[in-house]
Amino acid sequence: MSALSDLQATLDPSRKSWVESANDSTSDFSIQNLPFGVFSDKRDGLNAVRRVGVAIGDEIVDLAALQAAGLLKVSSKADVFARDTLNDFIALGRDAWRSVRVQLSQLLARDTAALRDDSALRAKALVRQADAQLHLPVQIPGYTDFYSSKEHATNVGSMFRDPKNALLPNWSEMPIGYNGRASSVVVSGTPVRRPNGQLKLPDQERPVFGACRKLDIELETGFVIGAGNALGEPVACADAEANIFGMVLLNDWSARDIQQWEYVPLGPFNAKTFATTISPWIVTLDALEPFRVAQPVQEPQPLAYLRHDGAHAFDIHLEVTLRPQQATQASTITRTNFKHMYWTMAQQLAHHTVSGCNTRVGDLMGSGTISGPSEDSFGSLLELTWNGKKPVELQQGGTRSFIEDGDELTLAGWCQGDGYRVGFGVCAGEILPARS
Amino acid sequence: MSALSDLQATLDPSRKSWVESANDSTSDFSIQNLPFGVFSDKRDGLNAVRRVGVAIGDEIVDLAALQAAGLLKVSSKADVFARDTLNDFIALGRDAWRSVRVQLSQLLARDTAALRDDSALRAKALVRQADAQLHLPVQIPGYTDFYSSKEHATNVGSMFRDPKNALLPNWSEMPIGYNGRASSVVVSGTPVRRPNGQLKLPDQERPVFGACRKLDIELETGFVIGAGNALGEPVACADAEANIFGMVLLNDWSARDIQQWEYVPLGPFNAKTFATTISPWIVTLDALEPFRVAQPVQEPQPLAYLRHDGAHAFDIHLEVTLRPQQATQASTITRTNFKHMYWTMAQQLAHHTVSGCNTRVGDLMGSGTISGPSEDSFGSLLELTWNGKKPVELQQGGTRSFIEDGDELTLAGWCQGDGYRVGFGVCAGEILPARS
Repeated sequence: MSALSDLQATLDPSRKSWVESANDSTSDFSIQNLPFGVFSDKRDGLNAVRRVGVAIGDEIVDLAALQAAGLLKVSSKADVFARDTLNDFIALGRDAWRSVRVQLSQLLARDTAALRDDSALRAKALVRQADAQLHLPVQIPGYTDFYSSKEHATNVGSMFRDPKNALLPNWSEMPIGYNGRASSVVVSGTPVRRPNGQLKLPDQERPVFGACRKLDIELETGFVIGAGNALGEPVACADAEANIFGMVLLNDWSARDIQQWEYVPLGPFNAKTFATTISPWIVTLDALEPFRVAQPVQEPQPLAYLRHDGAHAFDIHLEVTLRPQQATQASTITRTNFKHMYWTMAQQLAHHTVSGCNTRVGDLMGSGTISGPSEDSFGSLLELTWNGKKPVELQQGGTRSFIEDGDELTLAGWCQGDGYRVGFGVCAGEILPARS
Repeated sequence: MSALSDLQATLDPSRKSWVESANDSTSDFSIQNLPFGVFSDKRDGLNAVRRVGVAIGDEIVDLAALQAAGLLKVSSKADVFARDTLNDFIALGRDAWRSVRVQLSQLLARDTAALRDDSALRAKALVRQADAQLHLPVQIPGYTDFYSSKEHATNVGSMFRDPKNALLPNWSEMPIGYNGRASSVVVSGTPVRRPNGQLKLPDQERPVFGACRKLDIELETGFVIGAGNALGEPVACADAEANIFGMVLLNDWSARDIQQWEYVPLGPFNAKTFATTISPWIVTLDALEPFRVAQPVQEPQPLAYLRHDGAHAFDIHLEVTLRPQQATQASTITRTNFKHMYWTMAQQLAHHTVSGCNTRVGDLMGSGTISGPSEDSFGSLLELTWNGKKPVELQQGGTRSFIEDGDELTLAGWCQGDGYRVGFGVCAGEILPARS
């Protein structure tokens, strides 16, 4: 186990890397970040092999190569980096994640010569992100999506139910969530086909079948389970963060018209199951530690099983851009922050497991749409355009009520440190026309 | 690929086995059935190894042993039977399932000497079910639960919404479904702990935390995906049955009080995620073929993507017994039939994928609670006792409004042939007290 002082040193804002691009104050992948992902080298063509990497500046460090060269020790003798997914590494446990973080931070630090001065190994172990294909970082046994932004739940309740009683009574008592579809979680860059489904038009008695007309994003983050719990053994709220490996950006694509017709009484189904996009880099909770802030005041005070002392929100800037197919320029359509979320990740996990439900390494838990308090900080087009009534103006390409074919939607997010960032990269997807 | 005449011969009601217990007219596991499962031999203790088997009478045929002895050929040279789950075998495809079925039917037929007269091999390849531990037969990448009994949806709508408009308008247009939690699917015999959760009592303003007071069963069947579909490529209704490997019994344990408080607007979550029990034997669609019957008339006629010609229901008797902890005798609390289901499995799968959602080998799809038309044929205690207002009388152990600690609930199901059965075995679970 690494000493806590070594772990603390990985967060030192003054630490710089010999990978110079990591020292750019606008790089998402500073030496303070060190997020984990799975990549292959596009230059290897059909022989490309997936392995575990860590982003640093414009490069990726190949952990399998480092381990093979003896520069990276893991608690297990198993080869957990020459793998298609991060699951085997994550399953080693938090001490192993932290040990690898500490070793990498030291190895990539400006003054450490071992890799810096070994040009043969550097050629093998460093791959430019421009040359890399990024893959889904984890095999996801289960995907759950929460609904934990008070502003979002209030907006949706106002539009679809009753503006005077927009928040349902259960919302303030628990992090409402539902099971999502894990099979259709895809990595950033995967094109997303507009879904077909049943649409109930206001002027017709029966639904029609056709392409979704109200295709939307949901700006979310997700957290990845790092330590599962056994069936029947809940995770206590105060302990829950220790079970979380890290966070990603998540776009919970939503077909609003399909959703409105199908969702009573069992919740969203085909409106969501066609695709969910996540960013390829998992930013660890350790890297996010300097950006911990207090969550909003919770009133009424939650039931005992949902209480935790201290600060459990994180200050993460989030934004979404939309680029029409022919446009050279993307327009920012919203800017918000993860710190607005009412329910914390720890509360979500405690609630999820309090019934005895088990979780497994690699499980993905979505935050729910992250909407801020102002009209330009909402996390969906549904809210930004108030169900299409107030289209958003793009800098190039007209206006949008909902997403059009060919549009590329890109989520971005980062924590702003003193002269450096801990960023998530992007979570992007272009919309293909529906199947005819 | 086996000739269709060979496949047809496996259904011949007059075929008998040299495993005499399979010829008992009340055995679930006739030679016409041949369901697949995963077992280990309890007598092997800590060295017990899981492998694929087929139930025949009171015995299990060990397919790994048969393959090793050269008595079972599979299309792939891979060893798919010395495995923890059926997934690798199922992934070989329908021709392989059918080829194995044909070979086993011939090998176990009364007149076939190869295994019958080889006592050394028989000692290795036949394990008495009494000596076997049965395991979850598939690794389940995704679990979806439908809501396709008109009687059940009407009963629930009458109790919780409006008896005059019990069926919501979308119900008659599509097989309503929701994503379930795959991690907590357990095999028959696994004890189930009563869940804790938020309960909203009528006389209190805020919810309390405590043990579920309205614990219930849902009598369901489930089907297991045998061939997945790619993201963006729906399965046509007419082709959907070819993607189904087989069926199991499924108990969708439900905490009615937790459910009532949490389910609006995103559907059931903690009320269901604590456990779902399935039977260990997967009965193939091929074995069910003689019991195919017409589904109920669907009015209005479904949209085109939900239409299929011919008969797509199956005549499967279903019943549930309840045995209190101290009782020697179990009481039958309901008898019903799968053929009452309004939406077919093919329609469920076509609807599930029409948005482009992908499915994977081993995915489990629950039917939804199977309620018949009469009051003694309902598939849940909620309906049988009309939300506790009319407790059911047990033959031993008093009455029940909902499940009590120590109660063992057992689902059973079979198709009745002419002098033989194609049965599912049982799907049982005993309720342990909630964690304090």
